[in-house]
Amino acid sequence: MEKYKVNFQSVGRMIEVPGGTTVMKAISEAGIDFDFPCGGGRRCGKCRFRILEGAIQSDHMEREFLSEKEINEGIHLACFTEIYSDISVELLRVNDVKHQILMAAEERSMRIEPHITKRYIEVKKPSLGDHQSDWRRLRESLFQGEHAAALDVQIPVLNQIPETLRTAQYHITAITYGRQILGIEQQDTTKTLIGMAFDIGTTTIVGFLIDLYSGKELSVVSTLNPQAKFGADVISRISYTEQEKNGLETLHFEVIKGINRLIKEAAEKADINVEDIYVVTIAGNTCMHHLFLGLNPRYISKSPYIPTISDPLVLNAESLHITINKTGKILVLPNIAGFVGADTVAVLLATEMDRSEEIKLVVDIGTNGEIVLGSKHKLFTCSCAAGPAFEGAQISSGMRGAIGAIDHVVFGEELEYTVIGQVKPQGICGSGLLDAIAGLSEMGIINEKGKFLHPDKITNAKAEVFKSHIIQYEGTYAFLLADEEITAHGRPILITQQDIREFQLAKGAMAAGINILMEKYGISVEEIKEVLLAGAFGNYMNPHSACSLGLIPKELEGKIKNVGNAAGTGAKLALLSASEYGRTANIADAVEFVELGSYPKFSTIFARSMNFK
Amino acid sequence: MEKYKVNFQSVGRMIEVPGGTTVMKAISEAGIDFDFPCGGGRRCGKCRFRILEGAIQSDHMEREFLSEKEINEGIHLACFTEIYSDISVELLRVNDVKHQILMAAEERSMRIEPHITKRYIEVKKPSLGDHQSDWRRLRESLFQGEHAAALDVQIPVLNQIPETLRTAQYHITAITYGRQILGIEQQDTTKTLIGMAFDIGTTTIVGFLIDLYSGKELSVVSTLNPQAKFGADVISRISYTEQEKNGLETLHFEVIKGINRLIKEAAEKADINVEDIYVVTIAGNTCMHHLFLGLNPRYISKSPYIPTISDPLVLNAESLHITINKTGKILVLPNIAGFVGADTVAVLLATEMDRSEEIKLVVDIGTNGEIVLGSKHKLFTCSCAAGPAFEGAQISSGMRGAIGAIDHVVFGEELEYTVIGQVKPQGICGSGLLDAIAGLSEMGIINEKGKFLHPDKITNAKAEVFKSHIIQYEGTYAFLLADEEITAHGRPILITQQDIREFQLAKGAMAAGINILMEKYGISVEEIKEVLLAGAFGNYMNPHSACSLGLIPKELEGKIKNVGNAAGTGAKLALLSASEYGRTANIADAVEFVELGSYPKFSTIFARSMNFK
Repeated sequence: MEKYKVNFQSVGRMIEVPGGTTVMKAISEAGIDFDFPCGGGRRCGKCRFRILEGAIQSDHMEREFLSEKEINEGIHLACFTEIYSDISVELLRVNDVKHQILMAAEERSMRIEPHITKRYIEVKKPSLGDHQSDWRRLRESLFQGEHAAALDVQIPVLNQIPETLRTAQYHITAITYGRQILGIEQQDTTKTLIGMAFDIGTTTIVGFLIDLYSGKELSVVSTLNPQAKFGADVISRISYTEQEKNGLETLHFEVIKGINRLIKEAAEKADINVEDIYVVTIAGNTCMHHLFLGLNPRYISKSPYIPTISDPLVLNAESLHITINKTGKILVLPNIAGFVGADTVAVLLATEMDRSEEIKLVVDIGTNGEIVLGSKHKLFTCSCAAGPAFEGAQISSGMRGAIGAIDHVVFGEELEYTVIGQVKPQGICGSGLLDAIAGLSEMGIINEKGKFLHPDKITNAKAEVFKSHIIQYEGTYAFLLADEEITAHGRPILITQQDIREFQLAKGAMAAGINILMEKYGISVEEIKEVLLAGAFGNYMNPHSACSLGLIPKELEGKIKNVGNAAGTGAKLALLSASEYGRTANIADAVEFVELGSYPKFSTIFARSMNFK
Repeated sequence: MEKYKVNFQSVGRMIEVPGGTTVMKAISEAGIDFDFPCGGGRRCGKCRFRILEGAIQSDHMEREFLSEKEINEGIHLACFTEIYSDISVELLRVNDVKHQILMAAEERSMRIEPHITKRYIEVKKPSLGDHQSDWRRLRESLFQGEHAAALDVQIPVLNQIPETLRTAQYHITAITYGRQILGIEQQDTTKTLIGMAFDIGTTTIVGFLIDLYSGKELSVVSTLNPQAKFGADVISRISYTEQEKNGLETLHFEVIKGINRLIKEAAEKADINVEDIYVVTIAGNTCMHHLFLGLNPRYISKSPYIPTISDPLVLNAESLHITINKTGKILVLPNIAGFVGADTVAVLLATEMDRSEEIKLVVDIGTNGEIVLGSKHKLFTCSCAAGPAFEGAQISSGMRGAIGAIDHVVFGEELEYTVIGQVKPQGICGSGLLDAIAGLSEMGIINEKGKFLHPDKITNAKAEVFKSHIIQYEGTYAFLLADEEITAHGRPILITQQDIREFQLAKGAMAAGINILMEKYGISVEEIKEVLLAGAFGNYMNPHSACSLGLIPKELEGKIKNVGNAAGTGAKLALLSASEYGRTANIADAVEFVELGSYPKFSTIFARSMNFK
């Protein structure tokens, strides 16, 4: 087939693709960290680019998402457009690579206790009177008697022993994991011991390169999850594995590739070799966990929602093609049940909820939402497909928390908002949407049911100055946040009635989850002593707005604390300490999973929870 | 490059090769089980074929090995000849595939105790009130509490669990190895449990497919070791790994391929699937052991002769690309030291020398020769590069024990001999050579030093009738065993002075080894209560001839017992019983290795041992 050059001018990258390839696929293959909010589903209209040169063919349907002006300027959508000559394009949202990915978190004190051990030894040299094998003399220089005999070794390590011993004149450093020897290095390398912790989110992957002696973070890296182009949320990823030939292999391969890129990047940033990394911990929700391992996630999404495995798993890096030291180990944190996965276990490890005397509530809102309620005596959890709305996927002007997103809105003397990166706004992210809707609700511009009132029916005096923002839109009303003249793309940023409905579905699911867990626990809201907000959205949102809308019970407003990327922190703790990793299995077992859909009163509670009180 | 067709008419096989390929390489690539006694070293002149059609180019040097008549008949040597058109050839020694490979051995009683366990269980079905993962419910149906928690599982097994459970309606058979689960199968398959034991010799590989419940041999298969085309003995194989690019990978790959072919053949013969095989045991000398594992054997052949590993090893079949069940295990028997490898350990396991009150001598003559002397109190071993002469490699009319080989010679009223397969003779194998030289020595046709006497100086009356067989040859004498008119190829079969010298070197090495081990042990020959002959040559040779020439001390003639392929028997025992396999490590540790070359009086003893007494 004829091949064509695609020149991504704005990012300075060039690749070749066969005729008929979509621009979306070309972007992926070029390894550009570009965001497709709806996973390439042709639903969000956000993967805009400008054609500068060359012949393309675009589906007429894309015009639904574009203004006349944009069409005239040569703007197209990457998912709709196919390449039929050498082309040159400008990607319009490539600054999305500067996503505000939540990487830091509140750290807690812990005792460092690495999974792997390095020991510098001098191995006894062979002679004509001492015919022992290289392995035997190595192992007996390390341990005595039964301990030496129990030491386990695999071929890749055996392969390196003879030359390493002789080149290093029998002065070597041995790396062991439990009773397995992972490798030997020439001379004394005990000063370096490095590992990496990963939090694999549905949307983003964050990796922490850690010095395993000091606990020091050597570098932090992140990327959009490269699986996102095959589906924005866990359900659409699972559908992809079921409907596409080799779908499972594709998604598995994508996340492995993504992680390997992060490992390389983190090592380069910290100026170390990837071979120096001997251990990696992995946290992620059940679906991410299964896809990372190449396990079919099919039955997680079908009643009664059974994962293949929930236990902690220790695997060889090589068997998963993870490019750390080829004898290195991958430690996968355990899942709980259903979609509540190893990321929630990591959050619990980081927040030590399983050791708390007081009852706490953890709310982790990422692309998926997970809630845990309890104390050392009892823990309950549930998951809600809450995220996409909070991440801008089904919101008319929605976008993730990236440069150009309105992230906070204040209804003061006049309308005020802040934009990430202090640039012209180009959309609104979850925390901005929350503030806006909370304001509209508090001023009575929308009612308890979330419906816009006729401007004449609005009675709140404070609302007066904002009435001019209420516009007619698609047969009802919308709230104009930013006029087309001040936005980056020349289109207005609105809060539409439909946006509010989408928000209510997400908020309703979260609030229903919290209510049902309280019911299961048999406590009233006052008994909750602390609310810990984890995850990207939870971290940036204004607690007052969340409580005002009932996303979190009003009574808890004063008890809210942000804990940042607690899943990442948990993965780091599990990396730094074998005891902490060991504890994850107990935590996973201690939490009782509540499947919301099958909870008897779920639909009633959910319907009620959509209201703004 | 231009490609040409090669039609192997006699075997009905056809392949394509690039111009310039040697016929030897074409034979290998066609997968024809053809014997290259000198490993393609252009030294033995035995890889004869007849060109029927097409253009070849042959090195003039091959004429040294061919008679005028053969040259006129279009006979060539495969190692000298390159292909330059489509050709059609007839291989003249392809009946070599019917080698008398030693497969049976004296069996001893034992308790069967398989390494792997199969259990039929009914796994608890999941429900909305029971969210445990598939793995958890499987593992808890198998074991309780800590035992269940300690069960280890890898991704390939996890991958098969969800569908197998659901298709089989949760009625499955679980296969475990220690605390690892190797797989699950639908319904009750506990009636089948199959393993395979291999003896990897330098020249031949033998495999035994075994029912692990009954111990019954389901099929036995064998092949020439496909590495042989890269070198006839261990030293030339090691040179190959050092001198050729990717030499180690090539030899490793060849033996793995060979073993996989045998597995397939054995399974077909027994009408089972290769997936039913879950465990394989491997015995072989240290070099074969290292090449099987892909380990560099370099330092085994360099003073102080150190292998990479001697301990028993349990590996995943998949990591070695052995095509049994992909979660199956490969159990490699331990080595002793130097070239004395896992095959000798297997021989000791089979013969139970480590449990014997009496002192025994084991002589295992294959391509390499190994000797063990001792009892339960003390065991000594050494190795001697004895084999090639006994296998015909450096003998003018030598060949292996295949159809057409003179395998026994009797000097009675007249010269009598037997030919394997009762066909016209085409050469002489080790046991025939031994008989012939023993007869010549006993009749005084050759003297103590192995030198032919002038016919007039022969005084023994019995020799009179054989004087007519003594002919002038290359400035000295030779003994004519078979006239050119009665041989298959129309050339005479002789015992030359040079043949006797080659034999003396091999015999001298073995005899010196026995003497030195006796010295190390501090015993006289009378204290040896039994001599166990193992291996191909040992099994077919006439004990009287061996003792007459001093290959084995004369005093032991009445104490000799053949034990057949004891290495194969040991591999089978280790396959059938986890305790027996466990014992191999103790045996390997109990044997003290004696490096002959560095033994102080070695050259004196060796020189003396070459004589015929």
